[in-house]
Amino acid sequence: MTPLLLTPGPLTTDPAVRHAMLDDWGSRDPAFIALTAELRQRLVDVANGGASHVAVPIQGSGTYVLEAAAGTLLAKGDRLLVLINGAYGERMAAIAAGLGHAVEAMRWDESAPIDPAAVAARLSADPAITHVAVVHVETTTGLLNPLAAIAQVVAEAGRLLIVDAMASFGALPIDLATLPAAAILASSNKCLEGTPGLGFALVDRAVLATCAGRSASMSLDLHAQWQGFETNGQWRFTPPVQVVAALVEALRRLEAEGGSAARLARYTANFEMLLAAADALGLELYLDRAVQAPIIVTFRSPRHFLFEVFYRALAEAGFVIYPGKLTRGESFRIGCIGAVGPGDFRGLAAALAPALMAATQA
Amino acid sequence: MTPLLLTPGPLTTDPAVRHAMLDDWGSRDPAFIALTAELRQRLVDVANGGASHVAVPIQGSGTYVLEAAAGTLLAKGDRLLVLINGAYGERMAAIAAGLGHAVEAMRWDESAPIDPAAVAARLSADPAITHVAVVHVETTTGLLNPLAAIAQVVAEAGRLLIVDAMASFGALPIDLATLPAAAILASSNKCLEGTPGLGFALVDRAVLATCAGRSASMSLDLHAQWQGFETNGQWRFTPPVQVVAALVEALRRLEAEGGSAARLARYTANFEMLLAAADALGLELYLDRAVQAPIIVTFRSPRHFLFEVFYRALAEAGFVIYPGKLTRGESFRIGCIGAVGPGDFRGLAAALAPALMAATQA
Repeated sequence: MTPLLLTPGPLTTDPAVRHAMLDDWGSRDPAFIALTAELRQRLVDVANGGASHVAVPIQGSGTYVLEAAAGTLLAKGDRLLVLINGAYGERMAAIAAGLGHAVEAMRWDESAPIDPAAVAARLSADPAITHVAVVHVETTTGLLNPLAAIAQVVAEAGRLLIVDAMASFGALPIDLATLPAAAILASSNKCLEGTPGLGFALVDRAVLATCAGRSASMSLDLHAQWQGFETNGQWRFTPPVQVVAALVEALRRLEAEGGSAARLARYTANFEMLLAAADALGLELYLDRAVQAPIIVTFRSPRHFLFEVFYRALAEAGFVIYPGKLTRGESFRIGCIGAVGPGDFRGLAAALAPALMAATQA
Repeated sequence: MTPLLLTPGPLTTDPAVRHAMLDDWGSRDPAFIALTAELRQRLVDVANGGASHVAVPIQGSGTYVLEAAAGTLLAKGDRLLVLINGAYGERMAAIAAGLGHAVEAMRWDESAPIDPAAVAARLSADPAITHVAVVHVETTTGLLNPLAAIAQVVAEAGRLLIVDAMASFGALPIDLATLPAAAILASSNKCLEGTPGLGFALVDRAVLATCAGRSASMSLDLHAQWQGFETNGQWRFTPPVQVVAALVEALRRLEAEGGSAARLARYTANFEMLLAAADALGLELYLDRAVQAPIIVTFRSPRHFLFEVFYRALAEAGFVIYPGKLTRGESFRIGCIGAVGPGDFRGLAAALAPALMAATQA
């Protein structure tokens, strides 16, 4: 039996999504051009962005999309402020600096949400900052940052906001009709429940139109990629056709489930069953409950805890979990996302106690 | 019925390869680490490179791999000479120049193979050139460049050779025990008959060891990617797990078929059936037969030829072909590669005559 993947991704997908990979596609054939058009339309619709934003899918993992955004949206002389409370904020700063851009960082503790008032003060004090980047849900911990309030202060300061929504897109609310954001970045294999291999950016059309020729990278150029789709509906370079087909099927299923709100409700039910089971075993959340998103959950490791033993015991019971990524303190993570539901978490709850016993007495 | 894809890729794959995509995989789980190790071993074995080269798979299309090689292998102050007789040579030059490297080009007509003696003279005249890049089979036309002779003159001149083997790897002979090449670049979805979404570089271990920290790109850094695999057997970023599984299955099937030599024999049989059928219809090869590889074949368009009509007629008969990419003159291309055999080409031969009639009288 394939185990359930309770991780930050790749995740357990629905069999229908994987079966959508059983066809070959000619990437320049009209049938695949139509599939690509459906993909782009559905992606922008998930965030209600059709009036303002365009969807630019691009082959690669989430990191590739972050790099494409940094390379395409920032011009020479621009200055990026990255709001950091975890490893993915650090990654965005490292990517942009590696590409030669001027980067500043504001840092918070991994357990603390970003403070919009502090961001407002920093933007007011530093008029050279042109762009701000933030991670919506930090996969490092599972922390939910206050995106709407951050976007508000960035917009009021007249700067452009880049949102890493890898861990939230498709489940937590992102409404581009009201959220002022230049770009929302995400990937196929998290809350959208597709298979990995594709990222995408939803970019403000007027902003992206100013970005021609900025990217030093041919592969990761969001403007050229957009223009490619607009010119003939085709991908500039051979796309991962089966992964595209799987993501379209996953987006159809998202709509059939009732959209992001219904998906969030399912993940929240998973999360609450997980918390109840953990609580009964004395496992502690790392974060305050108020900022822990129902996406990926960090638990403090109990005393005398052997993660490898715990991992193997749960894997044998059919559940793959994830190591922690905290800079201080031992931890582990369990995901609530993917094609999994409360029935699966009932099974997990039953498996946790013996696994924990094995991992703490070994 | 899914049509057969007689194109440069994505190609028709074997059902067993597509069925290998039906599982979910935890990308940090021991089972996937083992699959990745098998992938890397099989890739290096295809080119008999285990004694000297390491396989560095990297997510993306062929273009991503070219960019990763240019960004990782070239240092500041290095100078790349690109040998160009088609669009993919031009692409390599554009990629390297875009990244800020010093690039020179030698150009031949699209119908002419690269001349090793001219390359030797240029290298002798210009000692500042540190690297040479060449395309083994130019997909623009299907032309086979004389790789062994080119590698010989580059090695004799003490420069490093980068080979774009996208269209040849897995079918045409590449033996790293005798071919002096710093890097061989290819992708999952051509002669290896995997699904698209992965590229890879086979890089001389001693050369790659000197390349730490060179790449401005985090995503497309071959040295960091290699070190990631060497450290814990894992991918640095979420890999396209189903595409990896498909490529491993495809590599197992390549071995079962009898390796590259057997695969080349099958493609050659396809090619000869295609040429016989085309000849009977008066269709002319664009290239001299002596330099036309049995991979992707360019035909001159006959007089009064409507490609769209021809394309649709063949697609309705179950065969997807490809437009031409010549800078001068009308043409179209038909591929001989993928999970297709002489039986399929018998079917194609029967479909060509009515399609050609429709396309020339419409």
